[in-house]
Amino acid sequence: MQNKFAAMPEPPYYVVIFTNQASSTNEGYAPMLDIMLELAHDMPGFIGIESSRDAQGFAVTASYWKTEDDIRAWRNHAKHKIAQSMGKKNWYDHYQLRVAQVSRQYDGP
Amino acid sequence: MQNKFAAMPEPPYYVVIFTNQASSTNEGYAPMLDIMLELAHDMPGFIGIESSRDAQGFAVTASYWKTEDDIRAWRNHAKHKIAQSMGKKNWYDHYQLRVAQVSRQYDGP
Repeated sequence: MQNKFAAMPEPPYYVVIFTNQASSTNEGYAPMLDIMLELAHDMPGFIGIESSRDAQGFAVTASYWKTEDDIRAWRNHAKHKIAQSMGKKNWYDHYQLRVAQVSRQYDGP
Repeated sequence: MQNKFAAMPEPPYYVVIFTNQASSTNEGYAPMLDIMLELAHDMPGFIGIESSRDAQGFAVTASYWKTEDDIRAWRNHAKHKIAQSMGKKNWYDHYQLRVAQVSRQYDGP
């Protein structure tokens, strides 16, 4: 099984929870996603990402970052800005984004 | 489209990010999930839940709560304890859980 889980460093660290409903237009989405994932991995403070999209096109993605400044830098990255714009215009019927500070965590079983 | 998005009250509020890889055993899972969702909705401080499971059985679920005490009460609910125990034993190959405080948010397009 491919590891779809993100690392769990000592809190506090930060999470961006991005939920979205895909539109009926997915042209260009998959290659852009690959580019963005590769780019995010190279950004300062990137910890990891956990993402799932169901059969109805609803996705929940949590990306983890060391600091809020790291999140801002990612949000403002020029290539990511282009992807955001294309997403709003073409790929998402609706999305919600929340930034939160992780305070505790555990895993199992 | 069914609304799979959760409400966005004024921050701060709290989120539990629960990610898991389903095992090959899903007997009893669906009815327990229904019971747990109904129960969560009736818990004090419950705001909403956003969840997605992909074709490979990897799920990301974010449940939102007004306070950390609300999260503790949900974690310690007797019926939820039983579900947790069954999940660890039967339904999940692996899971990770993080608690975080939501500080800002937006939606679109």
